[in-house]
Amino acid sequence: METIFHLPDNDFLYAQISGRIEKQIKQNLLKCGDKLPSVRALSNEQGISISTAYKAYVELENMGMIEARPKSGYYVKYSPSRSAKAPEINPPLKKIEQVSVGEMISMVYRNMAEEDVVRLSRSTPSLNLLPLAKLSKSMTEAIRKSPSGNVNYEKLQGNVSLRKQIAKNAFNWGGIHTEDDVVTTQGCMEALVFCLRAVTKPGDTVAIESPTFFGIFNIMLSLDLKVLEIPVNPETGIDIEYLTQAMDKVGIKACLFVSNFSNPVGSCMPDDRKQQLVSLLTARQIPLIEDDIYGEIYFGKSRPRTCKSYDTEGWVMLCSSVSKSLAPGYRVGWCIPGRFKEQIINLKMMHTISSATPTQAAIAHFFETGRYDLHMRNLRKALHTQCLRYTQAIATHFPADVKISRPQGGYALWIELNKNIDAFELYQAAITQGISIAPGQIFSTDARFTNFIRISFGFSYDDVVEQSFIVLGGLIKKMGQ
Amino acid sequence: METIFHLPDNDFLYAQISGRIEKQIKQNLLKCGDKLPSVRALSNEQGISISTAYKAYVELENMGMIEARPKSGYYVKYSPSRSAKAPEINPPLKKIEQVSVGEMISMVYRNMAEEDVVRLSRSTPSLNLLPLAKLSKSMTEAIRKSPSGNVNYEKLQGNVSLRKQIAKNAFNWGGIHTEDDVVTTQGCMEALVFCLRAVTKPGDTVAIESPTFFGIFNIMLSLDLKVLEIPVNPETGIDIEYLTQAMDKVGIKACLFVSNFSNPVGSCMPDDRKQQLVSLLTARQIPLIEDDIYGEIYFGKSRPRTCKSYDTEGWVMLCSSVSKSLAPGYRVGWCIPGRFKEQIINLKMMHTISSATPTQAAIAHFFETGRYDLHMRNLRKALHTQCLRYTQAIATHFPADVKISRPQGGYALWIELNKNIDAFELYQAAITQGISIAPGQIFSTDARFTNFIRISFGFSYDDVVEQSFIVLGGLIKKMGQ
Repeated sequence: METIFHLPDNDFLYAQISGRIEKQIKQNLLKCGDKLPSVRALSNEQGISISTAYKAYVELENMGMIEARPKSGYYVKYSPSRSAKAPEINPPLKKIEQVSVGEMISMVYRNMAEEDVVRLSRSTPSLNLLPLAKLSKSMTEAIRKSPSGNVNYEKLQGNVSLRKQIAKNAFNWGGIHTEDDVVTTQGCMEALVFCLRAVTKPGDTVAIESPTFFGIFNIMLSLDLKVLEIPVNPETGIDIEYLTQAMDKVGIKACLFVSNFSNPVGSCMPDDRKQQLVSLLTARQIPLIEDDIYGEIYFGKSRPRTCKSYDTEGWVMLCSSVSKSLAPGYRVGWCIPGRFKEQIINLKMMHTISSATPTQAAIAHFFETGRYDLHMRNLRKALHTQCLRYTQAIATHFPADVKISRPQGGYALWIELNKNIDAFELYQAAITQGISIAPGQIFSTDARFTNFIRISFGFSYDDVVEQSFIVLGGLIKKMGQ
Repeated sequence: METIFHLPDNDFLYAQISGRIEKQIKQNLLKCGDKLPSVRALSNEQGISISTAYKAYVELENMGMIEARPKSGYYVKYSPSRSAKAPEINPPLKKIEQVSVGEMISMVYRNMAEEDVVRLSRSTPSLNLLPLAKLSKSMTEAIRKSPSGNVNYEKLQGNVSLRKQIAKNAFNWGGIHTEDDVVTTQGCMEALVFCLRAVTKPGDTVAIESPTFFGIFNIMLSLDLKVLEIPVNPETGIDIEYLTQAMDKVGIKACLFVSNFSNPVGSCMPDDRKQQLVSLLTARQIPLIEDDIYGEIYFGKSRPRTCKSYDTEGWVMLCSSVSKSLAPGYRVGWCIPGRFKEQIINLKMMHTISSATPTQAAIAHFFETGRYDLHMRNLRKALHTQCLRYTQAIATHFPADVKISRPQGGYALWIELNKNIDAFELYQAAITQGISIAPGQIFSTDARFTNFIRISFGFSYDDVVEQSFIVLGGLIKKMGQ
């Protein structure tokens, strides 16, 4: 088996590199406007890992010494003599070579915000699948119900009615909880950040899935955490045997896994594997941060259980939100942090005092009125249909040798192309045709999965999507020749 | 002049102390349920500073080894043999002795959430001063106006209309900005956290005011930053001469000051002092994080300028929100981060993807319709009246030797009592009478200002408030005997 330990070099290395570059800039050896070597070139030049080179640049960027320019690379920004003006710089390069994973991620994120692009890279429901009118009604009714018009600070731990509803829904995934166990957050992302901050310190190592959602790398980078990538089996999820061996070799402080419909592979851990994972981590007192954001988007008969449901000693911190199921822009998320509840509440207090009142109240009202259950039944049916249609289109328009994942929930198809095809090149070719896909490279720290792509089926299948698959299929066939 | 350098001991000391305690717990020398020495006792015992002792306990708490119990202290939580059960513990102590600043802050925060207490400790407007119906109307109208019912993700940098309005309002404090300069956040607190994270690393030192708002200490603690406390003059604000000298002795990475109506002193820096401060910091390339949350609450003829208005090179990061003026629970804040904009946007992306859509849109709509200006005129008038009434009540019911600040804006009166009176004892006595005040001790890291209290005048003056002043006055007179 290929080695998968991709721990960055030691903590000081990137600081040394950035320090050296800083000196050159301050001595005007590198001048304002100068282009810096690409991350990959710096890595080769200095004999350091890609991620160390990337961190060195991020460090310099944070110091205001250099800047990243979209589709172009890093440039010196700082000028020792403050009267000097930055020259007008080269136009963006046409052909992008040697881009880091970080750069690729930024590019894909940017495409997701472009409205004139067919965003097959975006794992969110399209608007026509969401109950806009009923949500708006819940917002208005919740304000009318509240003596303070929902203008006052909400309770630090979160809206009580909302926490009650979350605790009630926990029953569906095998959990027995009360509102006292739940802390609300600004989306699932904030929940993940608080959980990681509660149980790690900068420099610690966290085990994550490989491949995994690229947003995770950003969080890790921003918290200065190292990652240990554990392979995911499409059927059974995280490779527990591998994790066990890895833990013996590398000290890890926490795990962050998506147990249900992992992104991008779509695996759903069977119950016995979930139980086994929780036992293993509990015995070693290693916290498991369980990202269950896709748990409600199941295509089968019933809601899959969570690892949290097997957690008897509080080592599992479940995180979720309504962003994938109901209202992405409401930023209503939560965690059930087990034994780390007080630390999470403290972090929330220090970061933000409390989460927004009107949005929490609206979602609570939506749950209370039973609108949620009805909506979810419709959404699951629609997404399941879309999943099958997208799969069929890929089977029809892509070459015969592609392999397609068969997820039982979630938003994404993970597609393996012929080994000769570079997914990032395909991404670049597709974007010029107004189609955005997620290249496999961005799902690991070292740009593995070069012949994989992720296609999300959140947007309703229509002629535009159909046409995109015809174009994509054509590109793949051409590149494979 | 009394020395004011309160830098904590070196970074490793607290980790050493916590490591030693951890070992004792793991060896079962300290058992689950055992009470630990108070922070002050630990500090004396080990010859370390209060803040180092506090950090050691926070560290152990984060590790899940110990827990803080309200009004009681720290207890061992971890048990090496997992079958052992924590014993039922002593009831909360009646008389609290030797509490740390951190513990005092937690106590005051808790009181602020208790609804059956007269919360003279809370610096927010009472509900009857806020335009509840008009806000609710703005929320509904903004949802109706939006094709997506404000359910979709908002732009990463923030709602464009809101940013335009913030840029437009900047004109009132002497700033010339466009929407492109503004990044929205989840309240001012999140803006401060992002700004600090953008320009500091754990272990760095940040200059803050003394006395200052206790929430600042929590942020610093959570980001593992050291603080350098700079005295504030009630008339002219931060002591710039002192700051200059201090910077020569201690390397500081950033300043975080409230230039307009500082909390608790209420000082407003004159324009020439603001300009002088910005020149000083710009020359040294030290970022100034300017918390302008009270800037709009002025009692004089015009809006005071900000330090940001003198910032020609982007070293000032202005932070504010509508929490003190319009809608505390909406959690709509922003910053104008100058040269650090990209870093702030990156941090926002990594923490939360984007801020909530409906609340930003509602506030933008409220601004656009001109409702804000009218509301603010009324609010300022009401708060100015309350400020004078509260001052009068204190002058009437408190002993003749108290000194009262004369703020020209904001929410707070800073009151100096007779030197013999311990403000924390007064706080404890008052809370038993259902009155919550903020004792001076919590406005510095080392519990200075022992004979000061902060009284906030956000709640409308009525018989209940009047009665509270009579009770407080009686307590003070009794304690001064």
